[in-house]
Amino acid sequence: MDAFLWPDTVGVSAAGQLSIGGCELAALAREFGTPLYLLDEATFRAQCRTYRSALARHYPGTGQVHYAGKALLNTAVAQLATSEGLGLDVVSGGELFVALRAGVPATHIHLHGNAKPRAELEQALAVGIGKIMVDSLDELELLAQLTAGCAQPQPIMLRLTPDIAANTHAHIETGRATSKFGFALDMLDAAATRIAAAPGLQLVGLHAHIGSQIFQQTPFEQTIAVLLDCAAQLRERHNLPISQLSPGGGLGVPYTSDQPLPDAEAYIAALARAVVAGCTARGLPLPALVIEPGRSIVARAGVALYEIIATKPIPLAEGYASATRYLHIDGGMADNIRPALYGARYTAMLANRANAPETELVHIAGRYCESGDVLLRDVRLPPAAPGDLLAVAVAGAYTLSMASAYNLVPRPALVLVAEGRARLIQRRETYADLVARDLPLV
Amino acid sequence: MDAFLWPDTVGVSAAGQLSIGGCELAALAREFGTPLYLLDEATFRAQCRTYRSALARHYPGTGQVHYAGKALLNTAVAQLATSEGLGLDVVSGGELFVALRAGVPATHIHLHGNAKPRAELEQALAVGIGKIMVDSLDELELLAQLTAGCAQPQPIMLRLTPDIAANTHAHIETGRATSKFGFALDMLDAAATRIAAAPGLQLVGLHAHIGSQIFQQTPFEQTIAVLLDCAAQLRERHNLPISQLSPGGGLGVPYTSDQPLPDAEAYIAALARAVVAGCTARGLPLPALVIEPGRSIVARAGVALYEIIATKPIPLAEGYASATRYLHIDGGMADNIRPALYGARYTAMLANRANAPETELVHIAGRYCESGDVLLRDVRLPPAAPGDLLAVAVAGAYTLSMASAYNLVPRPALVLVAEGRARLIQRRETYADLVARDLPLV
Repeated sequence: MDAFLWPDTVGVSAAGQLSIGGCELAALAREFGTPLYLLDEATFRAQCRTYRSALARHYPGTGQVHYAGKALLNTAVAQLATSEGLGLDVVSGGELFVALRAGVPATHIHLHGNAKPRAELEQALAVGIGKIMVDSLDELELLAQLTAGCAQPQPIMLRLTPDIAANTHAHIETGRATSKFGFALDMLDAAATRIAAAPGLQLVGLHAHIGSQIFQQTPFEQTIAVLLDCAAQLRERHNLPISQLSPGGGLGVPYTSDQPLPDAEAYIAALARAVVAGCTARGLPLPALVIEPGRSIVARAGVALYEIIATKPIPLAEGYASATRYLHIDGGMADNIRPALYGARYTAMLANRANAPETELVHIAGRYCESGDVLLRDVRLPPAAPGDLLAVAVAGAYTLSMASAYNLVPRPALVLVAEGRARLIQRRETYADLVARDLPLV
Repeated sequence: MDAFLWPDTVGVSAAGQLSIGGCELAALAREFGTPLYLLDEATFRAQCRTYRSALARHYPGTGQVHYAGKALLNTAVAQLATSEGLGLDVVSGGELFVALRAGVPATHIHLHGNAKPRAELEQALAVGIGKIMVDSLDELELLAQLTAGCAQPQPIMLRLTPDIAANTHAHIETGRATSKFGFALDMLDAAATRIAAAPGLQLVGLHAHIGSQIFQQTPFEQTIAVLLDCAAQLRERHNLPISQLSPGGGLGVPYTSDQPLPDAEAYIAALARAVVAGCTARGLPLPALVIEPGRSIVARAGVALYEIIATKPIPLAEGYASATRYLHIDGGMADNIRPALYGARYTAMLANRANAPETELVHIAGRYCESGDVLLRDVRLPPAAPGDLLAVAVAGAYTLSMASAYNLVPRPALVLVAEGRARLIQRRETYADLVARDLPLV
């Protein structure tokens, strides 16, 4: 087992039973059914603390960690993040609703997004959201109108597009000049001019997010340099001081043993150094530094658990010479679209026979009715049979958050595990749920 | 407008208002909000009738049309299909539940899938499902056990993998020998032997499905030849007569004006000829011919309607020299994953200014927080502004059926339009729905 890919609390008994948070996965499968998602509370909290303590240790100014809810958000997860002192980044009225319901103070919430509908901006203004990350001149114009009569100006930050290549999958690279996100740098003056004429808006900071699954430090440092150049420009040309700076999130997370394990503390230390040195060089005061991890907090805390339903031999054929069998599981692309969508690779074990020799190379086929639904390819496992349990590691981020009810298969349950206790935090979807929005023809 | 890409009832008023089923889209947006999906009842019914009448006209044996529910299934859609005399193909217990709730007789339902969980097989057997399409020896063994004590044998068909290349996207090509679906041809004898020893199972037919979005006739004819060879083999070696034959579905649907428009009647005629000639050549009686269209029934009947939220200029850059602006809409990859997942292309119009000259080349960016969420690239439209409405054609299949609540954006409503009347058949998801499965930590 590559322990660095599993939750901090992973264990294997002498009988080969895999456990997380002191709970044997086979027992959880019996109690909650499969497919089942597990979230290890200890890992989630430890990741939150790593970021907060690293920021406190390495950054002389104010530091804030905001959990990027789009990775995985529900009421309990928002409660966990806020209980660790994290703020919350939301990208919709729905995420804002969940955050408030979970008790996250509105002032600790930032609203992001390239296309925020008017109703969701109104919702955010009405609840007194901490900051709105403004993404375009059109949005700035709308916000200026919506806040024109407000007594208290709404704090905003501008999302900039630093035109930095992040060396990740094109779908999740967001910092290029051609990105759909944010202001191109040559629009900064126009934005500042509009803000100056908007009494309801208060520009407090600059933001950029160059993508996710980034394993190099350099793109982050380049981003900080661009943001500080823009802060200097705003001060000089518009007399607008910047008190907050955010280089976003995006630190890479390994999913397989051949991928590097980034050091979150070293990443924070390098960001802090870059901000301090950049401010000194430009004569800027130190801004509050806001970082926005999502995947790197929740991904490894999550484990997906499936039952193997059937097996099928694979005839020898070009390009498939390796794996000799499909193992068909009771989940797949609807609960985890990442392999089909991004070509993402995963790591898996048999949860009920974790000590058995991994002597067979197999494909793990999802249950959904398309050929693209193969969750793992060429993975080495003990010879498995129907009824065995498959655990997939690093399954906490961008899995349930993107889950559909494709093929009308109910979405899985999510269980929080800690110290031998398993708590259901999102129940399994039911057939009744699937038709709750249906209106029959009469 | 390329009328062949829009519902049969599409119209544009002198004022440039796009209408479907006699309903102006701008009025529907005001009444039901956006994003909104529309289903044109006339087109859906006409497509059902085209298949049924073509089969009746060209095939001398019994013909059955089964709607493949995975393309789009909810209570009203199942009601529409069954009211047109179609059977229903389901791929899960959830789809079976919806079909029965809609009043589809169990005997008119076929259960498909490469990984049917035991509970769903038990559910299907309990309701007296018409046929189960058996996908593997493991499933055959399980079904033999589950039906061992039944008074009435359960009719089954074997899904075979004919090893035919369908020349479509790898994710939706399903007929290769290396596919996760079905029995390889060299396993037919083993399957027949197991069935002969299973008193609870009655083999009535053979099935294959080689993929979807297929625009050539030849792969379908090859499939029929393989199925008939297998039928002959079963008769000769096992004395097992085959009374039903299904070459699946998969007829291509054009999404853009440069794609061909397949002739459904010619497709059915060719299938019928192939079955008749193939049976004659092999001395086989004519089987019932079951065809399973999904996308080709519902895709063009559907239209997606979005509001343009914001716009953004695109700096000139390599590979992006064409489009000069992003139009940001209030939907995207969560309601339609196909562009991100398959590189699918679409056709769009401004629903409220359908007569304006299309003088600008733009990208349509979805609202979801990743760069991959660009719904259309390099599409020509009239110069658009926030508040304009974007209609996307051929949006009925594999859109809502694969929809997620990613970013916690509620899933859209679906409205059936016919003769000037708009009926809500699936209501918009609410914030309350989004947390209905959440259990807060206490």
